[in-house]
Amino acid sequence: MIVPRLIERKRSGGSLTQDELRELVLAYARDEVPDYQMAAFLMAVYFRGLDAAETSTLMEAMLASGSRLDLSHLPVARIDKHSMGGVGDKTSLVLAPLIASLGVAVPMISGRGLGHTGGTLDKLESIPGFQTQLSMEATRRQVEDIGCALIGQTKELVPADRKMYALRDSTATIEVIPLIAASIMSKKMAESLTGLVIDIKRGSGSFLPELDKGLDLARAMIGLGATHGIPVVALFTAMDRPLGHACGNAVEVREAIDMLHGGGPPDFVEVTFALGADMLVLGGVSRTTDEARREMARAISSGQAAEKFEEIISAQGGNANVVSDPSLLPKASCDAVYEAPADGFITRIEPRTIGHGIIALGGGRRNMEDTIDPSVGFVITAKPGDKVTKGQPLATIYARRKSALEIGRRTLQDAITIAESAEKSLPLISHRVTKDGVEELRKK
Amino acid sequence: MIVPRLIERKRSGGSLTQDELRELVLAYARDEVPDYQMAAFLMAVYFRGLDAAETSTLMEAMLASGSRLDLSHLPVARIDKHSMGGVGDKTSLVLAPLIASLGVAVPMISGRGLGHTGGTLDKLESIPGFQTQLSMEATRRQVEDIGCALIGQTKELVPADRKMYALRDSTATIEVIPLIAASIMSKKMAESLTGLVIDIKRGSGSFLPELDKGLDLARAMIGLGATHGIPVVALFTAMDRPLGHACGNAVEVREAIDMLHGGGPPDFVEVTFALGADMLVLGGVSRTTDEARREMARAISSGQAAEKFEEIISAQGGNANVVSDPSLLPKASCDAVYEAPADGFITRIEPRTIGHGIIALGGGRRNMEDTIDPSVGFVITAKPGDKVTKGQPLATIYARRKSALEIGRRTLQDAITIAESAEKSLPLISHRVTKDGVEELRKK
Repeated sequence: MIVPRLIERKRSGGSLTQDELRELVLAYARDEVPDYQMAAFLMAVYFRGLDAAETSTLMEAMLASGSRLDLSHLPVARIDKHSMGGVGDKTSLVLAPLIASLGVAVPMISGRGLGHTGGTLDKLESIPGFQTQLSMEATRRQVEDIGCALIGQTKELVPADRKMYALRDSTATIEVIPLIAASIMSKKMAESLTGLVIDIKRGSGSFLPELDKGLDLARAMIGLGATHGIPVVALFTAMDRPLGHACGNAVEVREAIDMLHGGGPPDFVEVTFALGADMLVLGGVSRTTDEARREMARAISSGQAAEKFEEIISAQGGNANVVSDPSLLPKASCDAVYEAPADGFITRIEPRTIGHGIIALGGGRRNMEDTIDPSVGFVITAKPGDKVTKGQPLATIYARRKSALEIGRRTLQDAITIAESAEKSLPLISHRVTKDGVEELRKK
Repeated sequence: MIVPRLIERKRSGGSLTQDELRELVLAYARDEVPDYQMAAFLMAVYFRGLDAAETSTLMEAMLASGSRLDLSHLPVARIDKHSMGGVGDKTSLVLAPLIASLGVAVPMISGRGLGHTGGTLDKLESIPGFQTQLSMEATRRQVEDIGCALIGQTKELVPADRKMYALRDSTATIEVIPLIAASIMSKKMAESLTGLVIDIKRGSGSFLPELDKGLDLARAMIGLGATHGIPVVALFTAMDRPLGHACGNAVEVREAIDMLHGGGPPDFVEVTFALGADMLVLGGVSRTTDEARREMARAISSGQAAEKFEEIISAQGGNANVVSDPSLLPKASCDAVYEAPADGFITRIEPRTIGHGIIALGGGRRNMEDTIDPSVGFVITAKPGDKVTKGQPLATIYARRKSALEIGRRTLQDAITIAESAEKSLPLISHRVTKDGVEELRKK
């Protein structure tokens, strides 16, 4: 394998054979191909793309670079949900216990905050004692025992992806659809799934704001799933505003617990139910999404979903009492109410600004070495379209110090636009994509 | 400076400011920017290009990364010739002494063989004892004393270019016009030139076979020269066949010595005279190229050009007797005549095949660590357009071992095409480009 020739071929618009691409990825994972050659290759892929066969080969090679979480002996379906990242998106915190409580195994590998978006691992770690770094063996046992584990990517799982992802992050090659698709799907394949639901975010707060690119990504992931006989369903949800009210870490866990107790803001509940319904249908527990919604409502009202969350927290070393008493979650030392500065309609609540504000408050990372303060963030009760009057409370700011409250205030001032007339926002859930095609959903 | 943001901007078609690009290049030269980020940046430049201002900033930054060969105190003009690389191109070996013998200083920084092409340094080192690695101080003194030095790129001179060139070589980002232009011109600027003649090769044996790309490159280099008030003239010469007869190292030195004694194959003599004429006009020694040609003819017939070559060889530790007695050059232990396998017209002598054949014989490098055998190569007396009869000698093969002669035979078989009717080759010298525009030359 002469690497510059392979880079040159891709650069000139050609394709790599299965053997060539597989060897390139595996040699890179073994540190036999230097970062600089992979960086040049990935930038060439940014411009020239990968065809379906190459994308599949890339996924297989990443999968082959490590070991798998083998759960194929389990008698139940194994369904995961993956989100493309957003602000205020705590659906995983509800879906994992809720779906597991209905008899579908949920082996969920999550990430940390990236850019302006929050990460499920960071949120979970705001629960005192909660461990997200489990061994493969411990993860397998936990899924066998209680049907769910909420873990971070381990060293053994798809190391080629791990290494390539870090390289992409520092070489401006993140936003490449086949690379995103192969990266996500290799991790999902390593979980031994039998089905996958993907939440693709649209709008200004998304990493992939344009609908057509999101559709390309959905099709790429559905295609990759099909090569392993794994059905993939993608829902397109709005990220032109935060999801739900809470944006931060502990505040989001609290909102998730609210929902597990039957509460929660309507948009958050609706997206969670829509994703969960497809998980239950893929898992064979429900025949229709309507039936699945009824099952989920029952699991919440009966308390079995909240109980499953307690089981998961206990199994992973956390204080399960937070589920019945959320005041045990870390609390910010300062808070302040943010009031509408004028009369009018809320036309925008910009997720990127909110996300960067959380980082500025100390609730996210600028570098991978930063530690985060789980207590800080925002609870924004206002929504785009709301008519507000000057002085009306729109949000609460949670900060470490009095002086930091000002950062929160400025963030909200920048993020929230009030105008004389209302503007249209994106529909909460706009499209559903399966192997059978794209379905545009009726606007609610 | 946040490097991924700069890569992202270039990737998306934007431009870097002067400060940004300068800092990127200088930080890279100081090992503060990793190779993988520069590799991604260079691949983005492959697709998006650099505008004229960026190309100039890149050249200035590379120049600023090292020290200069300051010759500005010399009372005479300082003119160099640069070739884009070819097979059988030994014009530098004649031009340096010839032009220096006419009162123009020639501080010439050359390279080694690259890909299928030969390198002036490798050829010079076939002269017993010849040293090409001189210190900056020794180079300056030699140019002061005898008007010429033939050296390799030193560590002090444009280290950013050195480092970036090695990276480009291993990441398939060599063929990028603004990068080529800035790389060449930064080295030339570091030589304190007052004028530069560039030989841009056309045809299948060139790194940049297409005329329009060559013209873009010529314009880019002329533009960069103008920013320092240095006139640049580009001649476009044929590289769809080797130049002259000899292809190798010692055999090429021998052919150059032949020309310094008034001989040499007509195509080699013509290209050398054309390049030399523009060097002398730029150097202010001749008013017209016709006058310059007469001066060069005189310098050869008087013996002063050959004598200058002896001076240079002596000054650089070599055995100057090779000029009067070329049999002192390394001789191959085996040789064989290659005969025409059929009647017909020679339609092609493919330079890339010949160049790769020289490497296969041991006369070039596969890796930078390889040592080369200066004695091996080809002397191909046939030329495209020649009518030949079966059995007629076309070339001589020089090899280390009898068994290697077969490699030479196969090379010539592959490289030389004989057909029933003649085909057109590229004109030997087709275009001349200056700051005033492109002149198409009458075909000879």
